[in-house]
Amino acid sequence: MGERVGFIGLGIMGKPMSLNLLRAGYPMTVHSRSAPPVDEVVASGATRASSPREVAEASDIVITMLPDTPDVEKVLFGDDGVASGLAPGALAIDMSTISPIATRGFASQLSDAGASMLDAPVSGGEKGAIDGTLSIMVGGTQEVFDRAKPLFDVMGGNIVLVGDSGAGQIAKACNQLVVGGTIEAVAEALTLATAAGVDAARVREALLGGFAGSKILEVHGQRMLDEAFTPGFRARLHLKDAHIVSDTARELGVPTPGFTPVEEELQRLVDEGKGDLDHSALITLLQEDSAAE
Amino acid sequence: MGERVGFIGLGIMGKPMSLNLLRAGYPMTVHSRSAPPVDEVVASGATRASSPREVAEASDIVITMLPDTPDVEKVLFGDDGVASGLAPGALAIDMSTISPIATRGFASQLSDAGASMLDAPVSGGEKGAIDGTLSIMVGGTQEVFDRAKPLFDVMGGNIVLVGDSGAGQIAKACNQLVVGGTIEAVAEALTLATAAGVDAARVREALLGGFAGSKILEVHGQRMLDEAFTPGFRARLHLKDAHIVSDTARELGVPTPGFTPVEEELQRLVDEGKGDLDHSALITLLQEDSAAE
Repeated sequence: MGERVGFIGLGIMGKPMSLNLLRAGYPMTVHSRSAPPVDEVVASGATRASSPREVAEASDIVITMLPDTPDVEKVLFGDDGVASGLAPGALAIDMSTISPIATRGFASQLSDAGASMLDAPVSGGEKGAIDGTLSIMVGGTQEVFDRAKPLFDVMGGNIVLVGDSGAGQIAKACNQLVVGGTIEAVAEALTLATAAGVDAARVREALLGGFAGSKILEVHGQRMLDEAFTPGFRARLHLKDAHIVSDTARELGVPTPGFTPVEEELQRLVDEGKGDLDHSALITLLQEDSAAE
Repeated sequence: MGERVGFIGLGIMGKPMSLNLLRAGYPMTVHSRSAPPVDEVVASGATRASSPREVAEASDIVITMLPDTPDVEKVLFGDDGVASGLAPGALAIDMSTISPIATRGFASQLSDAGASMLDAPVSGGEKGAIDGTLSIMVGGTQEVFDRAKPLFDVMGGNIVLVGDSGAGQIAKACNQLVVGGTIEAVAEALTLATAAGVDAARVREALLGGFAGSKILEVHGQRMLDEAFTPGFRARLHLKDAHIVSDTARELGVPTPGFTPVEEELQRLVDEGKGDLDHSALITLLQEDSAAE
């Protein structure tokens, strides 16, 4: 509990995660682009810092929770970045969802500077962040993972050290690939049932117990039936993650014939102005196209 | 228990299903193209018939379990077909996996002849047929369903009346769409993990508890890791079902952008001579293509 924690990025996810760590007793220094969440976390006992560098100078462990790869790169290695303030032996934990390949480069650069890094992207959404029940997929060494584990236990429930540096981001990319592909399949099936004049709710029920059964059929299938597209997980964020999946697959030479059209459908959904709906709103594209026949 | 049952089509699925009905005490008349399974079921107490018509003449309820739509059409309405021998008030139950739209036509033709029909395709494979634990998706009226229910209870576990005539086949098509799409997504994710040098087994574990969790990730994901491609469910049968999905979607004007490449991958698997492997062998195509980079 002696570790001093820095937290950079107090967005929808970062703010409740930092508050949980504060409540668990960790002394904390914070920084974020937007002032109101910083005020709120400072009011709960954290110290305000004016730059990522100041956060790093005041911390043993610095957590970043940011939108995308360029944000993490800038906060770590930009002017007044984390890297310029980390003491030797310090630890950076990036919990954002970003490029696995860029992540390996960041870890290598920090290692050259005498610091350690874990990639630890999460799933479970705002609710999981507030409740402290996030799934956390971690890449790094066992020793560094063990050091960070007490913090992960405060923020999450299902915590897995997947492998070396980048493995957490790879697991997250795999997660988003499978979730996207399954949502699209369920959406097509329920649209087919409805078009055939069959009650899609009964089809969902009939399928749940067998090999077609999944968390997506259960949760997102029900959202589709209810047309309850308040997120949940926003389609535009899934699109961002879909780009990570396809960029990574391309760099590694792995074909993704099944996922490519899912990414295209997510792009269409965002282009149609539905990016702030839950990703289960993919079914609305199929319904539009069916109705157009 | 007074119902006399006819059973046509004693293949891998039909033979154990008929034997379970015999053991439950139903008097039975059988017919099948191939002699050995007929001999075996007759040895267990059934009566041999020389044509579908003879089966129908000796039965109150006639079950068909055949490979594809043209087979069912021929057995029901061809020369010496079931329709020519059914008494008024008799019931035909087609448990094959065939076209939902053709099914509605068959039911209508039988209705004109004073007989009833249920479509009742199954999932659960040979093991489910032997153990009497098949999932059965049924289309037809509640009254006719109630009449057939005691027989379904002998053959299956999860029995759902999905809707009117054809609804059972629609549910089965939806099932095969979702199963195929999920297998492809899991295969792409595990291939991506391996190509990134990450242990795919740990990725599977990390994903199982969250939104990416599914029966397919659990069972077929493990098959992929073990390269255990002994069926299970043969890829060439899934391809047949994929054609039913896409034909039905086309006739109904429903787009299936996510499923189209899955059907293409199943076709490639069969074209490469792997049609008798389990459908989880879809991952081998991705591995070949990755290796070719």
